Amino acid sequence: MSDLLVRAARGERTERPPVWLMRQAGRHIPEYREIRENHSFVEAVTDPEVAERITLLPWERYRPDGLVMFSDILTILEPLGFSYHIESGTGPIIENPVSGPADVQRAREPIPERLDYVGELLDRLDDSVGDQTSLIGFAGGPFTLASYAIAGQPSRNHLPARQFRVQHPEAFAELLDRFTEAVAEFLQYQVAHGADVVQVFDTYAGILPPAEYERFIVPRHRRIVEAVDAPTILFVRNMGGRLDQIAAANPDVIGLDWTVEMGTAREQLDGLGVQGNLDPSVLFADRETIRERTREIIEAAGPQGHVLNLGHGVDKDTPVEGVEAFVETAKNFEW
Amino acid sequence: MSDLLVRAARGERTERPPVWLMRQAGRHIPEYREIRENHSFVEAVTDPEVAERITLLPWERYRPDGLVMFSDILTILEPLGFSYHIESGTGPIIENPVSGPADVQRAREPIPERLDYVGELLDRLDDSVGDQTSLIGFAGGPFTLASYAIAGQPSRNHLPARQFRVQHPEAFAELLDRFTEAVAEFLQYQVAHGADVVQVFDTYAGILPPAEYERFIVPRHRRIVEAVDAPTILFVRNMGGRLDQIAAANPDVIGLDWTVEMGTAREQLDGLGVQGNLDPSVLFADRETIRERTREIIEAAGPQGHVLNLGHGVDKDTPVEGVEAFVETAKNFEW
Repeated sequence: MSDLLVRAARGERTERPPVWLMRQAGRHIPEYREIRENHSFVEAVTDPEVAERITLLPWERYRPDGLVMFSDILTILEPLGFSYHIESGTGPIIENPVSGPADVQRAREPIPERLDYVGELLDRLDDSVGDQTSLIGFAGGPFTLASYAIAGQPSRNHLPARQFRVQHPEAFAELLDRFTEAVAEFLQYQVAHGADVVQVFDTYAGILPPAEYERFIVPRHRRIVEAVDAPTILFVRNMGGRLDQIAAANPDVIGLDWTVEMGTAREQLDGLGVQGNLDPSVLFADRETIRERTREIIEAAGPQGHVLNLGHGVDKDTPVEGVEAFVETAKNFEW
Repeated sequence: MSDLLVRAARGERTERPPVWLMRQAGRHIPEYREIRENHSFVEAVTDPEVAERITLLPWERYRPDGLVMFSDILTILEPLGFSYHIESGTGPIIENPVSGPADVQRAREPIPERLDYVGELLDRLDDSVGDQTSLIGFAGGPFTLASYAIAGQPSRNHLPARQFRVQHPEAFAELLDRFTEAVAEFLQYQVAHGADVVQVFDTYAGILPPAEYERFIVPRHRRIVEAVDAPTILFVRNMGGRLDQIAAANPDVIGLDWTVEMGTAREQLDGLGVQGNLDPSVLFADRETIRERTREIIEAAGPQGHVLNLGHGVDKDTPVEGVEAFVETAKNFEW
């Protein structure tokens, strides 16, 4: 059963949907909060031993069909020349954001040695549970990285990046290109270290108008998908009206957020793999409701090429019982 | 020409599109910032004389086809029993948010006298410019009000409201009902005081999955539209994949954000009025780019029932030259 996720991600028919959750190894697990009492976020991410312990927490609790490495979408910014730290209550702060077109040149090729803690983490996971579950690697997508690099912090509507694009379209394209190459290289590095499936989180790229998504995003997503030798899941939020634009990058699986009906998505994406898409807030409901809503999604998705997941990351206050009910529903399902 | 906006909002063919901007009377105007040096936000909103001066600032600068009253979508919360204040850098803070199902009963009918500064503002505007331009009233929509009332502050993914809905669906529906009746009454009150057109800002309702939007939102939007005796614009963000759900409420005009292509929206909404939808960040570009992008939208929308606007509010750092170029493009256009 350990290749269930890989088979579904390749678009195959599976006996039940594989299941994992975005941000499954996070704050909703009590043991995670205990570990974090002794380790800062950066320590937890960069120390392979600590990161392995955290990655395995959901394994011990839920036995999902995929284990996503405990890491951060922004780790790649550091070797690319952008220092950042996490500020409690605010989120990541980039200390030297892009403030003008010239700064784009600063984004250099990532130095693989500076990300070797990721390779070591995946090596360790491959040794410990690699034969029992699938390992999921990931990276932030080029727009999402650019939004942080330009805004220097989380920004509600990504206005700094959108403004930069309007004022300096060529520098913006150059920055996206540099990030695209770095992401492709980084994901391939993860595959070389044992990632069975990878996910690109270009979560915020859907903030661009369709014509600009087409111009700035699609070719770069395509480039990443082509470069990676493993099934690739592409996750972009708020794309319900233009799933064809995610599909245009030709990923193996399209990650759906919870604002699109699974059945509608399936109709529009005939034959393509899909992942998702339970509203994460449903995990706060009673078990019966969780079970019902989850089954609705499984049934709407059908038996072929569906990876069950939430439509976004697990919220930090989610009860573990909610996650249990979600995972069990997939495991008890039979086509 | 003073009824151009009303005619377009009724779905009629117009000689050029009427134009106004959401949040046009705000921080991007230097005189607004000057006025605010002497008046807090709450003072500016609740003092009809100050609010009138602010409402007229974009009139003096741009001569738009509609003047939206300077107010706040949350003013209605106060007479409904929720105290709030604006915290600089954070946004509105509700001092007594809904913390459980019983609190919903607290939301009472609004006491019209407690909103009489809005009526007085509209009366004044009707006297001063009512024969030269159209007056636009507005209110927050039920989900958006509920999200603030439950979360007590701006919340990124509206998780508190979504969680409350999952845990207490009946109390959630009751809260929405109370807000719906209050909004309907408040908008009718605005029409009685001279508003020619009204807009419902249920900006965040698109965070709900389609099935729940259908259940919780559509009937309440329909109720509001039916209750108001003036052309009604319904604005909900991130609905590109399900414009039919906005249309189901039967508003006169559907407000489009910038993540949907105008031409695509027109195809899907055959015959319905539309408003929008320039990406607000485009106003940071040079005049020629603004003109081009604006004309593209006007041409894609066609001559019938189109109100030109941005796809969201004017950002506070927007150069006035950008707004000028946008408004002029509409004014110089001829079908």
